[in-house]
Amino acid sequence: YDIPLLQKPASRSSSPPSAPPPHQETARTARYIAHQSDWGHLATISNQDKIKGLPFGNIFSVSDGPADNSTGVIYFYVTPMDTTVSDLRSNPHASLTFSEAEGEFCRQMAFDPEDPRCARLTLTGKMVEVAPEEVAFAKEAMFSRHPVMAKWPVGHKWFFMKLDLIQVWLQDWTGGISLVPLEDYFKATPF
Amino acid sequence: YDIPLLQKPASRSSSPPSAPPPHQETARTARYIAHQSDWGHLATISNQDKIKGLPFGNIFSVSDGPADNSTGVIYFYVTPMDTTVSDLRSNPHASLTFSEAEGEFCRQMAFDPEDPRCARLTLTGKMVEVAPEEVAFAKEAMFSRHPVMAKWPVGHKWFFMKLDLIQVWLQDWTGGISLVPLEDYFKATPF
Repeated sequence: YDIPLLQKPASRSSSPPSAPPPHQETARTARYIAHQSDWGHLATISNQDKIKGLPFGNIFSVSDGPADNSTGVIYFYVTPMDTTVSDLRSNPHASLTFSEAEGEFCRQMAFDPEDPRCARLTLTGKMVEVAPEEVAFAKEAMFSRHPVMAKWPVGHKWFFMKLDLIQVWLQDWTGGISLVPLEDYFKATPF
Repeated sequence: YDIPLLQKPASRSSSPPSAPPPHQETARTARYIAHQSDWGHLATISNQDKIKGLPFGNIFSVSDGPADNSTGVIYFYVTPMDTTVSDLRSNPHASLTFSEAEGEFCRQMAFDPEDPRCARLTLTGKMVEVAPEEVAFAKEAMFSRHPVMAKWPVGHKWFFMKLDLIQVWLQDWTGGISLVPLEDYFKATPF
């Protein structure tokens, strides 16, 4: 991607807590996006009548941990009544995509959402129900960042899921994408 | 979805140009979201080595027409170098998802992004290259709303695609989702 590069903004290389890490640090950038994002797009294979077997997308609020504790594992709070959750029973594989365009960064930098410097992160894996011993943490992760969820109607049989990762795909600069090794992703921190 | 309903905000039922239409008008709401959104999430079936056959998601800037002209047809400006465009050569089916959380509406209303009143629209169909006689319109649609694209490097062999619709899926209120008939979708206007 050979368009003329802007100067790196000072806020990006000096890295105060709220600014993205330097783009060369791909594992850290991936963890930063995964931690900062409150919601993302989940792509699944549909089981709906008219589009069976086709890709489908839906929106979920997420958390990889409370604001001061990042795990890199993405948690969800879902109901079996949701179209996507129903799709996941037929095919549990999914990709979760975040864009820096969800926040203020790209607008502030005047990056078009499709500009590769407006970073996007796609985590691909298998959606699984959170095991009983991990539910307390998933609950803290979700409810601390989405407090209203604690009041959602119990009749909808809400439960916690998480994404078991297969691949971490990141585009955070011009010049191509990065496949971040899982080990590097989990070793890095967004802080 | 039986949580206590908030009063409908005045801004939503009186419908000045920048506010969403009343939620009962599902075709109009779908067209409103499709027209107002500058970017969305495209779900495809991946052809990448490690995740072949699994769902993948990526971010694209889009336009259904210039600001004062809405078609309901979603246009894209893409390069063959893009991961998703490469995936589409193996399987052209895709879903494009928009969320009202992309703009200010849900934050202003204090709707969590997963709250069903923070509307989401998923358009499913087949991604096709725009025919020569339609390229002038696609170009006007895209470049009027994403002016920087006109300057993107020609070496990347940019071209225009659009989504040929199969299904319009909308969640814009509590109480379940709407499948909007294509005829109603195209007949409605967002204005």
